[in-house]
Amino acid sequence: MSERVYRVVQYGMGPIGQELARLALERRSYELVGAIDIDPAKVGRDVGELLGLEGPVGVLVRADAEAVLAETRPDCVLHTTGSYLDRVFPQLESIVRAGCNVVSTCEELSFPAAGHPELAARLDGLAREYGVTVLGTGVNPGYVMDTLPLFFSGVAQQVTAVRVERIQNASTRRKPLQEKIGSGKTVEEFQQLAAAGTVRHVGLRESAYLIAAGLGWRIERYEERIEPVIAERRIETRYFTVEPGRVCGVDQLGRAFVEGEERITLHLRMYLDADPAYDRVLLEGTTPLELVIPGGLQGDRATTAIALNAVPRVVAHAPGLVTMVDLPIITVRS
Amino acid sequence: MSERVYRVVQYGMGPIGQELARLALERRSYELVGAIDIDPAKVGRDVGELLGLEGPVGVLVRADAEAVLAETRPDCVLHTTGSYLDRVFPQLESIVRAGCNVVSTCEELSFPAAGHPELAARLDGLAREYGVTVLGTGVNPGYVMDTLPLFFSGVAQQVTAVRVERIQNASTRRKPLQEKIGSGKTVEEFQQLAAAGTVRHVGLRESAYLIAAGLGWRIERYEERIEPVIAERRIETRYFTVEPGRVCGVDQLGRAFVEGEERITLHLRMYLDADPAYDRVLLEGTTPLELVIPGGLQGDRATTAIALNAVPRVVAHAPGLVTMVDLPIITVRS
Repeated sequence: MSERVYRVVQYGMGPIGQELARLALERRSYELVGAIDIDPAKVGRDVGELLGLEGPVGVLVRADAEAVLAETRPDCVLHTTGSYLDRVFPQLESIVRAGCNVVSTCEELSFPAAGHPELAARLDGLAREYGVTVLGTGVNPGYVMDTLPLFFSGVAQQVTAVRVERIQNASTRRKPLQEKIGSGKTVEEFQQLAAAGTVRHVGLRESAYLIAAGLGWRIERYEERIEPVIAERRIETRYFTVEPGRVCGVDQLGRAFVEGEERITLHLRMYLDADPAYDRVLLEGTTPLELVIPGGLQGDRATTAIALNAVPRVVAHAPGLVTMVDLPIITVRS
Repeated sequence: MSERVYRVVQYGMGPIGQELARLALERRSYELVGAIDIDPAKVGRDVGELLGLEGPVGVLVRADAEAVLAETRPDCVLHTTGSYLDRVFPQLESIVRAGCNVVSTCEELSFPAAGHPELAARLDGLAREYGVTVLGTGVNPGYVMDTLPLFFSGVAQQVTAVRVERIQNASTRRKPLQEKIGSGKTVEEFQQLAAAGTVRHVGLRESAYLIAAGLGWRIERYEERIEPVIAERRIETRYFTVEPGRVCGVDQLGRAFVEGEERITLHLRMYLDADPAYDRVLLEGTTPLELVIPGGLQGDRATTAIALNAVPRVVAHAPGLVTMVDLPIITVRS
């Protein structure tokens, strides 16, 4: 690969956006040329200061996205502001209209046709019109529960079913994530949060549809359920203390039916003190194939890695809205 | 993906070629339209008979490759006649001149620039001239010790070194492979075979160079050594009985140096009764990442799978000589 340096703008300076900005600043293949956020506590500050680096990096957080993109004209925008496509669509549209490629960690964008076929078609049309490429990715959805099993299927003579388990130890994660999974809540409180959709991990459905698309399967029915994981003993993390009987995390199961059978099963358990943590892919067929990532991919680190590493592939790809199965293999760059 | 059916010709009816033909006959996305081999014991026989299927399949093994390709005009040729690019080059050239895409299991073709930069350039030029795509792949080289670690690097923030271990249990493999790894030989006999190059697995060097290309590294020095694995107790397989002190397999180590350091280490141990067998990828860096395939990918099955599964990607790709990092993710098709 060439020694090209990719000029990127970070759009969204929350935890993932800050980690992405930090990574872009560290890697010599990338140059951070702009940062966008509307949070008044961040606007006007130097990114280096915001990240707690030793000195300023000469890039200020600004609220006017269109001005930043027009002035910097980046090779690619790293977009990390939300999980739901309908909510972030206006931002994506403005990026595309500014003529910029986009890699977004918006979960629903990893396979937008699953939940928003009309928005997906509009975004694809806009991207082609403006000659840019749009990709949604991340570790999950985007890699460990979809692209990885698809990549693994390449060495399978036959696959009749895909089962993925992801067991994440939330104790090693940041506070908002520990809070999001319901740590310390009662079961009743958890059920209310689940009904409101706030503890739910977004993206299992997108992973199931991405797998199906990659294998040429047609999903007839998709079901998802969410349950609390209950602490069996007292758990103490840096941020939470959870008494026995209280909620310490989330257990989420996505099931897709093809030709009347459950052919895709995605099981995500994210809870405090999960041990062992791991990611596991099982491909059923004449010769079952198993793949394990001991410890599991750490969510934030892996999401920021795959998003930044995707930039060269997205920049090189023909215009349009693409998914992870459209791109050549994404590798890390120095 | 579409319901397209790919018309394929099997070129080479040895063990891998027969397994590939069998797989193509089983899958509804592929149609076997021709079979080529020069072995007089195979020429003129129906492929179904040769494979021991219940009945004939209506495809005869023929020796005249050019006639078969001209008459059948396949979407892709599956080429499985040899490991060394200089020896199979005339065959590849004739396939390309016939206007056919090629997926070959020729080990040196997986990254031909490593050992044969001039032949690689000639083949690339021919492929572009005739508007076809040429790919070398297989499980190893082609997947488990190169493309898999590259794919895994996509979720890494940084990779300073790639270490791959492949421990294959040769007891479950076919007789020619058990013979090839020196089963039952004395250490002296093994050393002579090693000096003559006959026990060596071909492709470690290609894997190292493929990894380096995918990560943007420049290999300054590549070293390889081969040693026998010695039986510690009596081993009996279906084909061989090996007394203690005799050779029961091969231990091969490839090491690539980048910027003065050993950045790529490929360790292949293929021996009788290997237990546990596994494939393992370790990416070193700020956050080391580990991936394990318990039991390991079975060589013949995985090689035939990836070769056949690659066909749609090769057919869809722009003309030229490509490697596994140029193609979108290869998935299994029904």
